[in-house]
Amino acid sequence: MRARLSWLGTLALLVTWISVAVAQTDPLPSWNDGPAKQAIVTFVTDVTREGSPDFVPSPERIATFDNDGTLWIEQPIYVQFAYALDRVKALAPQHPEWRDTQPFKAVLEGDMAALAAAGEKGAVEIVAATHAGMAPAQFIGMVQAWLATAKHPRFDRPYQELVYQPMLEVLAYLRANGFKTFIVSGGGIEFIRAFAERSYGIPPNQVVGSSIVTKFERRGGLPTLFRLPQVNFVDDGPGKPVGINQHIGLQPIAAFGNSDGDLEMLQWTTEAGGRRLGVVVHHTDAEREYAYDRQSRVGKLDKALDAAAVDRWTVVDMKRDWKTIFPVKP
Amino acid sequence: MRARLSWLGTLALLVTWISVAVAQTDPLPSWNDGPAKQAIVTFVTDVTREGSPDFVPSPERIATFDNDGTLWIEQPIYVQFAYALDRVKALAPQHPEWRDTQPFKAVLEGDMAALAAAGEKGAVEIVAATHAGMAPAQFIGMVQAWLATAKHPRFDRPYQELVYQPMLEVLAYLRANGFKTFIVSGGGIEFIRAFAERSYGIPPNQVVGSSIVTKFERRGGLPTLFRLPQVNFVDDGPGKPVGINQHIGLQPIAAFGNSDGDLEMLQWTTEAGGRRLGVVVHHTDAEREYAYDRQSRVGKLDKALDAAAVDRWTVVDMKRDWKTIFPVKP
Repeated sequence: MRARLSWLGTLALLVTWISVAVAQTDPLPSWNDGPAKQAIVTFVTDVTREGSPDFVPSPERIATFDNDGTLWIEQPIYVQFAYALDRVKALAPQHPEWRDTQPFKAVLEGDMAALAAAGEKGAVEIVAATHAGMAPAQFIGMVQAWLATAKHPRFDRPYQELVYQPMLEVLAYLRANGFKTFIVSGGGIEFIRAFAERSYGIPPNQVVGSSIVTKFERRGGLPTLFRLPQVNFVDDGPGKPVGINQHIGLQPIAAFGNSDGDLEMLQWTTEAGGRRLGVVVHHTDAEREYAYDRQSRVGKLDKALDAAAVDRWTVVDMKRDWKTIFPVKP
Repeated sequence: MRARLSWLGTLALLVTWISVAVAQTDPLPSWNDGPAKQAIVTFVTDVTREGSPDFVPSPERIATFDNDGTLWIEQPIYVQFAYALDRVKALAPQHPEWRDTQPFKAVLEGDMAALAAAGEKGAVEIVAATHAGMAPAQFIGMVQAWLATAKHPRFDRPYQELVYQPMLEVLAYLRANGFKTFIVSGGGIEFIRAFAERSYGIPPNQVVGSSIVTKFERRGGLPTLFRLPQVNFVDDGPGKPVGINQHIGLQPIAAFGNSDGDLEMLQWTTEAGGRRLGVVVHHTDAEREYAYDRQSRVGKLDKALDAAAVDRWTVVDMKRDWKTIFPVKP
């Protein structure tokens, strides 16, 4: 017995040792070997090696990530937009007038052409009807309840399972190397906070996003915050460096995006000099996810793809570089 | 020799042991024993003890601190205001017109009555002239250069030495107990970021404050942020819960303030139910610092002092509760 236990013990130790060794040598197991993976690993090695000319002290290791299309799926429509449409349908019984009023009529009838025709004005009306009129904590609770049941039309899985496994590994890898990871999204800051901690390990105070005006007032004798139907800040395009400055107060040394909405964030991060990393996720895999870039209505990648060549950003070819797209089903 | 070494060794161990024991039993050595110190220690013990009905998991241990009058001196004028006045004087040679234009004339002549008469409009003009027209990083550099040389008129010490030693101990004590500490100030967010990390150990992304509009644009081929002479957000009074929600995204469980500008933050923190801590620093020590409250122009403490009784906040009597006010001169 004793000999057998010892043999098993040795085997267990060996297995542990091998796992540790693999984990140490491959922090990004879902990435195929190639220039993209190499660029990320080399960058992290360079800025964390004491004595390296590119060394950056831990408090300045700031990495920013776009959310839609960079950390999770954004096709065929932004997840937050799917939430808004479902919310209009849920609220419709209390709003009989919506049956004859655009843009709500279009939503209820599934008339995407009419919805598109309603343009930005229509979008603002939908946001006002579905995102305002409650406390932030209430809104977050509603989003969480929706995420628990809603499913993606093509993959038939909850949206929280449609995060990109290779990017989860990048987030963990950076944090293990003394980075602070932030989301910097054009999407709503409170919408993202509803799942960022659980899905990405990113706490609410490390989420930067667009917002509507929130007001403090006493209601029924209690201090209350209330979301108003009015845009406060648009954290997209040139808004991203502004949002980064406001919330983070340091210039990132690494930025990850996937669309023209990330152009200025990538420029702001990489053009200041010093060892920097800019990464553009290029959706090239129609079979396992989606393939889109210059002509796409959602997540258009055109100017930022040209800029990637000029600024020497790393372009991730999803089909070539990622072994898996989504986490294995739990 | 050997015996003596051993005796010294034992003594050294004993001293170490005593220091550790004291450090363990007294996390707030600059606080006199009394209800204020007791309230802080009991609160921290209650929310961190596993199995306690008041236990709060570490990620939700959010503590917010006002800056002026809570973490450092605010009399006879806010430090940021002293910066603005010095800046007007430094810029005056490039602005000969200021010699005959209010509010600049008042500043240059040291005419505080005329300056007060210029009111909010005058204050905005001074902020525009001294706080806008440069990049955030440039502004922070200018503030740091000023802090390195400017001295407080009464104590003749740099402002960064006029932080409150007992509050530094509270910050460290909370962080050692799994809290995240945030500054939530009516002062300028970038002004505070110029010294918050060095003075308080609080990183830039944990500073919430007032701000002016910042714009992204390419200048001379480089991506640039530029501070504009326009108010973006006032993080004071009812603005504090809004700023907390925007930057932190969680309701604090402890809040520290000293004036009516902190009233809503304290209410927002403590009135939601659950074990909470509200602390009001009451300036009662004219000899070692200043004594002021209901009638003060700077740091007026009136409504919040009444509310402290209603909401059972801990009122720190600076004269009674603090053994020392400022850190020992380095």
